[in-house]
Amino acid sequence: MSTLKEKALVYHSDGRKGKIEVVASKPCFTSRDLSLAYTPGVAEPCREIQANDDDVFKYTAKGNLVAVISNCTAVLGLGDIGPHAGKPVMEGKGVLFKRFADIDVFDIELKTKDPQEIINTCQFLEPTFGGINLEDIKAPECFQIEEELKRTMNIPVFHDDQHGTAIISCAALLNSAEIVDKKLEDLRIVVSGAGSAAVACCNLYMHAGVTQKNIAMFDSKGLIHKGRKDLNKYKMNFAIENIYDSMGEALKDADVFIGLSKEDILSQDWLKGMAPNPIVFAMANPDPEITYEAAIDARKDIIMATGRSDYPNQVNNVLGFPFIFRGALDVRAKAINEEMKMAAVKALADLAREKVPEVVIQAYGGKEFSFGKEYIIPKPFDPRVLWKVAPAVAKAAIDSGVARHLIEDWTAYEDELKERLGYSQEIIRMMVHKAQKNPRKIAYSEGEEEKVIRAANIVHKEHIGISILLGDKEVIKNKILELEYDESNFEIVDPF
Amino acid sequence: MSTLKEKALVYHSDGRKGKIEVVASKPCFTSRDLSLAYTPGVAEPCREIQANDDDVFKYTAKGNLVAVISNCTAVLGLGDIGPHAGKPVMEGKGVLFKRFADIDVFDIELKTKDPQEIINTCQFLEPTFGGINLEDIKAPECFQIEEELKRTMNIPVFHDDQHGTAIISCAALLNSAEIVDKKLEDLRIVVSGAGSAAVACCNLYMHAGVTQKNIAMFDSKGLIHKGRKDLNKYKMNFAIENIYDSMGEALKDADVFIGLSKEDILSQDWLKGMAPNPIVFAMANPDPEITYEAAIDARKDIIMATGRSDYPNQVNNVLGFPFIFRGALDVRAKAINEEMKMAAVKALADLAREKVPEVVIQAYGGKEFSFGKEYIIPKPFDPRVLWKVAPAVAKAAIDSGVARHLIEDWTAYEDELKERLGYSQEIIRMMVHKAQKNPRKIAYSEGEEEKVIRAANIVHKEHIGISILLGDKEVIKNKILELEYDESNFEIVDPF
Repeated sequence: MSTLKEKALVYHSDGRKGKIEVVASKPCFTSRDLSLAYTPGVAEPCREIQANDDDVFKYTAKGNLVAVISNCTAVLGLGDIGPHAGKPVMEGKGVLFKRFADIDVFDIELKTKDPQEIINTCQFLEPTFGGINLEDIKAPECFQIEEELKRTMNIPVFHDDQHGTAIISCAALLNSAEIVDKKLEDLRIVVSGAGSAAVACCNLYMHAGVTQKNIAMFDSKGLIHKGRKDLNKYKMNFAIENIYDSMGEALKDADVFIGLSKEDILSQDWLKGMAPNPIVFAMANPDPEITYEAAIDARKDIIMATGRSDYPNQVNNVLGFPFIFRGALDVRAKAINEEMKMAAVKALADLAREKVPEVVIQAYGGKEFSFGKEYIIPKPFDPRVLWKVAPAVAKAAIDSGVARHLIEDWTAYEDELKERLGYSQEIIRMMVHKAQKNPRKIAYSEGEEEKVIRAANIVHKEHIGISILLGDKEVIKNKILELEYDESNFEIVDPF
Repeated sequence: MSTLKEKALVYHSDGRKGKIEVVASKPCFTSRDLSLAYTPGVAEPCREIQANDDDVFKYTAKGNLVAVISNCTAVLGLGDIGPHAGKPVMEGKGVLFKRFADIDVFDIELKTKDPQEIINTCQFLEPTFGGINLEDIKAPECFQIEEELKRTMNIPVFHDDQHGTAIISCAALLNSAEIVDKKLEDLRIVVSGAGSAAVACCNLYMHAGVTQKNIAMFDSKGLIHKGRKDLNKYKMNFAIENIYDSMGEALKDADVFIGLSKEDILSQDWLKGMAPNPIVFAMANPDPEITYEAAIDARKDIIMATGRSDYPNQVNNVLGFPFIFRGALDVRAKAINEEMKMAAVKALADLAREKVPEVVIQAYGGKEFSFGKEYIIPKPFDPRVLWKVAPAVAKAAIDSGVARHLIEDWTAYEDELKERLGYSQEIIRMMVHKAQKNPRKIAYSEGEEEKVIRAANIVHKEHIGISILLGDKEVIKNKILELEYDESNFEIVDPF
């Protein structure tokens, strides 16, 4: 047994089985607590909601609760493994929602492959949830299910396998084009794979500015072209004239390769035939369409992204779904529409262009990185993604008219997001920690003020710095005496 | 606004909305953690479950996860208030499951009143859960739904409104009959109400020994009798000859009144006409069929139970469902059958006859109580219910052949249950606390033993008692020296 396998099995089976637990968020120990949580007190919020339906967001967990729903017919690289075998993945998705955006998730594994039955079930479940994340449902059923649910439901429905990958890779594409100074509408793109993710990616790229006829999409049978009789309507949307005999031919002078298929599809030779500064997103998991090493070896001018965490430019859905739902839930959006997806794309693309703060560099082992060929999208553990993407999505929901709750104070909202996962605390901790390694002299200009002396005392006590109080020596000494601090904790300098 | 109303609304809306939160039960902070919780590590438990379906209980939360499913058509005393307004109740049910039996609950509120649609939905949801608790679904639809689900599903399905009340009140009935020295088969019973709870109660009472023809059931239109044409098949089962013109007439010389209807149904006059030592369970919520005061005033020889916590003999479902599901889940039962229900009844009835321990008396304000007319069933906050009822139910599941996992070491299982909610800790804490108030001399007969000296030292240090070590003085003193304890912590007595 490999080490990863052992560790993963122990992780899942040790102690409490699985990875999730449902806990009470309010005190529930005494009989008094329970008289509020259950009878007789619980009747009160029930009556309020009955009188005003929207109060369900005030008195229940609905507004922060997302269903991760799957029938497990297209799980990761594992395929149609059934609802029991897929359950660890869905629980894991819930863990990610919680870890990155403090969203509560019920993972729901369904015993049916019939799209209409899945649609019905989701519709019946609507009152329970604030949103639905469809997951690992195979194509083409997933398209029908999502379309019908979006049409009929009043809560956001989002098929992450389609739109998650589309959003992250579209942000990466925008930035790659910027770096190599090409225009989106001019990019010639070859797509390996024609499943749900590939279709969604191309739709979003076109929304961003890519020209449809510049896309050559290949499935396992070859080019998607107008002469083929075996295409479902979703693939048919991408049928072009039958102008390429092979993917290799299509790749000649192409600007972009999008891989959503399987390992070892893209050869070094084909890669060598691509246009200058080729953009290659080899996103098959766990093994990309071409290895990072082979790609870099073939083309020094490449921009290379994969789904892997051990190379630069990881295209990882976790950069999207937690924050898109966070924004959607926070404005009680009725849907996640194109405007909201594109807002997420732009927020992600913009963030990658910003200077990377200390907290992120620390999380990645102290290695510096900045916008360029090896850093085209934010890192998955960049905490800023939460308060950059969620507000952008929320704003787009409001502007496009699908929000039922308006945010007025955006600064307060951003602060609330930082507070949610304790990131503001974390940043302060990190700064304190850094300061403690090398305490410097800190001069306080208002050294006679009591609150300044208090702060300076803490700085001394926690070894953050050496406190220098500026002001009248006698006044300061008396204040220190009054506060019962030790005078030797401070240097006092009278600059006048 | 009443104080309870204000408090209940604040309780539900303050901070995190509602009452539940889903958290990760395993570490999920670092990228290393997430590589186990999600890709690539998560593929390992998926593969294991695919190879051996039962491993879903080993690697996921399914085995400890119950769905509380409702369409909210018959919520508490509130009626058909719809899935949003009923959500606080279902979340509250989840809180009770967690508080009393450490069971994780997804509360599921469904937007449909069609029994077949509810049946389908539950069937599709089966892989997600270890059991289903149907809740607050109106009669007669609830009967059809439960029957069909029990017939078709491989996890336990339990409609608590029916069987919960039936089990608790049946335990109370067994003990009441014992106290007044009457036989179950001779009891003449008048039932006010013919809804799901009333039907389930009578079915279970008969299973326990009550004679069907001795039951006179009344709905809002009067006696359920064979001449009526308006009865559904569930009521029809209880139709007798048309021998009573009114409930008052039926109550003449009756032994038992079962109230599952509404307030102020039972008059003092009718009560006065009942047989000696009348047994009255007036279980309408929140206001019983007759007030406790009026009942006691009318009959000094009464055994009176209600659903209320502020009077003796509270018939509260929380005495049942958490522990019944705990036992069922712990043996992976395929169902909750009659044997398991009856095992719960007997365990509850037996427990009420046992001496009440300090921990329970403390929880109820220090008031002593013992088996008799004012204590016919255990108190809802009696922690013993967990390790009395759950093992009884688990055993019955094994004996009746519906268990898929066998428990062999029942003592270990009981200890595990005590450990689950930290009760063993709590009891020890309480004992220590009591001892510390008045430390007594404790003599240790094996005073020369090192582990005895260690224990005696802790007893001294924590002010639990004054330690007297019995044995050879020199030997003991040398041991104390070796252990580097203070000799003055002990009295040493050589009894020889």
